[in-house]
Amino acid sequence: MVHIHEFQRLMKQIYFHRDSERGIEGMFYWLVDEVKELEEAVKMQERKAMENEFADVLAWLASLANVANIDLEKAAISKYSGKCPKCKEKPCRCPSLLKKH
Amino acid sequence: MVHIHEFQRLMKQIYFHRDSERGIEGMFYWLVDEVKELEEAVKMQERKAMENEFADVLAWLASLANVANIDLEKAAISKYSGKCPKCKEKPCRCPSLLKKH
Repeated sequence: MVHIHEFQRLMKQIYFHRDSERGIEGMFYWLVDEVKELEEAVKMQERKAMENEFADVLAWLASLANVANIDLEKAAISKYSGKCPKCKEKPCRCPSLLKKH
Repeated sequence: MVHIHEFQRLMKQIYFHRDSERGIEGMFYWLVDEVKELEEAVKMQERKAMENEFADVLAWLASLANVANIDLEKAAISKYSGKCPKCKEKPCRCPSLLKKH
């Protein structure tokens, strides 16, 4: 079992020196690219490719958080503390499906 | 401390009934939208907004993994098991910054 915080730290240990050189705008380019690859994999319903691309999107998100100096786990549990942050219910009872979470 | 798996389960408890109705293509629309909002927040260097948007991107990613029936934590540690999956080093020693992780 891996904490969100641990995964972010692992990404820091592996990639921070490269990501700092890339710069945060260059990193967004790759994050968006990975999201597109994930969408392709989901459309194709290829399980191994999906796992691979979900891992990559999470890795770039955690790496971006490292360069932006944001604690991803803290941010996530601060906003999603056991219920929908909008309607304050679990499960969510927000009125429209067209709306975001 | 929150495991990636626990956060994904929380998203399932809060949103799975809505996300299943939305469908996975509709969910990508919102994931991409959240990535754009994150990029804006990072450009503005607004800390609270950045935390908020990092949380949202992670929430949509975990929700997508729920609908695609993928274990995000398992996928992440399977690909990033302590080192760069390409050069097999920590820190990464891949030759070009232009390349992705």
